[in-house]
Amino acid sequence: MDKEKIRDLVKEIVKDMLQKAKQVPIAASNRHIHLSPEHVERLFGRGYQLTKLKVLSQPNQFAAKETVTLIGPRGKIPNVRVIGPARGNTQVEVSLFDGFTLGVKPPIRNSGDLKGSESITIQGPRGQITIKEGLICAARHIHMHTSDGEAFGVADGDVVQVKVDGPRGTIFSNVLIRVSPKYKLEMHIDLDEANAANIKNGYLGEIIAVESRNQVSGG
Amino acid sequence: MDKEKIRDLVKEIVKDMLQKAKQVPIAASNRHIHLSPEHVERLFGRGYQLTKLKVLSQPNQFAAKETVTLIGPRGKIPNVRVIGPARGNTQVEVSLFDGFTLGVKPPIRNSGDLKGSESITIQGPRGQITIKEGLICAARHIHMHTSDGEAFGVADGDVVQVKVDGPRGTIFSNVLIRVSPKYKLEMHIDLDEANAANIKNGYLGEIIAVESRNQVSGG
Repeated sequence: MDKEKIRDLVKEIVKDMLQKAKQVPIAASNRHIHLSPEHVERLFGRGYQLTKLKVLSQPNQFAAKETVTLIGPRGKIPNVRVIGPARGNTQVEVSLFDGFTLGVKPPIRNSGDLKGSESITIQGPRGQITIKEGLICAARHIHMHTSDGEAFGVADGDVVQVKVDGPRGTIFSNVLIRVSPKYKLEMHIDLDEANAANIKNGYLGEIIAVESRNQVSGG
Repeated sequence: MDKEKIRDLVKEIVKDMLQKAKQVPIAASNRHIHLSPEHVERLFGRGYQLTKLKVLSQPNQFAAKETVTLIGPRGKIPNVRVIGPARGNTQVEVSLFDGFTLGVKPPIRNSGDLKGSESITIQGPRGQITIKEGLICAARHIHMHTSDGEAFGVADGDVVQVKVDGPRGTIFSNVLIRVSPKYKLEMHIDLDEANAANIKNGYLGEIIAVESRNQVSGG
């Protein structure tokens, strides 16, 4: 058996084990920004294309080589990573702590739900823009593959509780389930939440309860 | 009835209601430092006395006018509040996020448990010291009056779970109970934990379970 086949087999076994135990790997997201194609050009120059630095766990997503500076009424945060590829609307995701630093109040929102969210100024090497809305603090959520949803007994849009152990043992409520055949099993929290529960990347959380079922697609 | 008597009566009624509901006001502690009398002199000058800026909720404690700068291998944090009065050993309490900023790893410890904790350099207006140990990330805890302990059915040294509601609803495990006739009912968490659960000062938490009983003083 070659290395690649052994790797695939191990991945398959780990996935089975996690599904049986209802366990989910946790990843802490640092502040980052998704840019619309138009805003890429305004910040980095006409015709500019983002450069892939590192492939991320969810499909087609990558950390770009490019970074921007966020400028708020109280302070600045430099070196904020751009996530590619360029897509629909510009969305900036920061922690509540970052909000204090900048002097703004990001609402806690699901990705894409930007209506009436916070304004922020974004500085790139070739330009500066101020978006009227688009700055949020991302709500806790779990990406999972369709087979994970079946194994865990949850559907897209359900809301669950996730427990993590340790000296800062914590149960997170209001964790949104997002199911797609394109997703890989992973819970996303921000740095405040990771620090509060003393979680390092790769730690496992356990889904211990379903708090609510999605009325549309849920069972 | 005069104003003072009404105030006392209201306090008494609120205390009764909180005890019945097993609810606890939550306070988020920003980074701060307790200094030994010797270190006050080395940082602020021979014979220096700390100046009271604001009385804190626990007895005799006050936020001092004085601040220091913490200096770690990666970065500095200025304007760190000194808590008075000067006492036994110097203890610096920061969040895990502050640990990243400084480039150090504060262990999660109860107040006073400093053996083998992290080293840090402290800069004052008249001098600079480096402590070999004393930098910690304070473990979650609840101060309560003896009568609160009786009403809640918990004793000094017990460990409980505390639930907070809202968009970032969270259940905190491993919350240490500290009972004294000198304490006022209050749960102390750090800024990472407050942000993770979207808690503002004065929010209430509910004690929902006792995780372990203190073998010495517990029932």
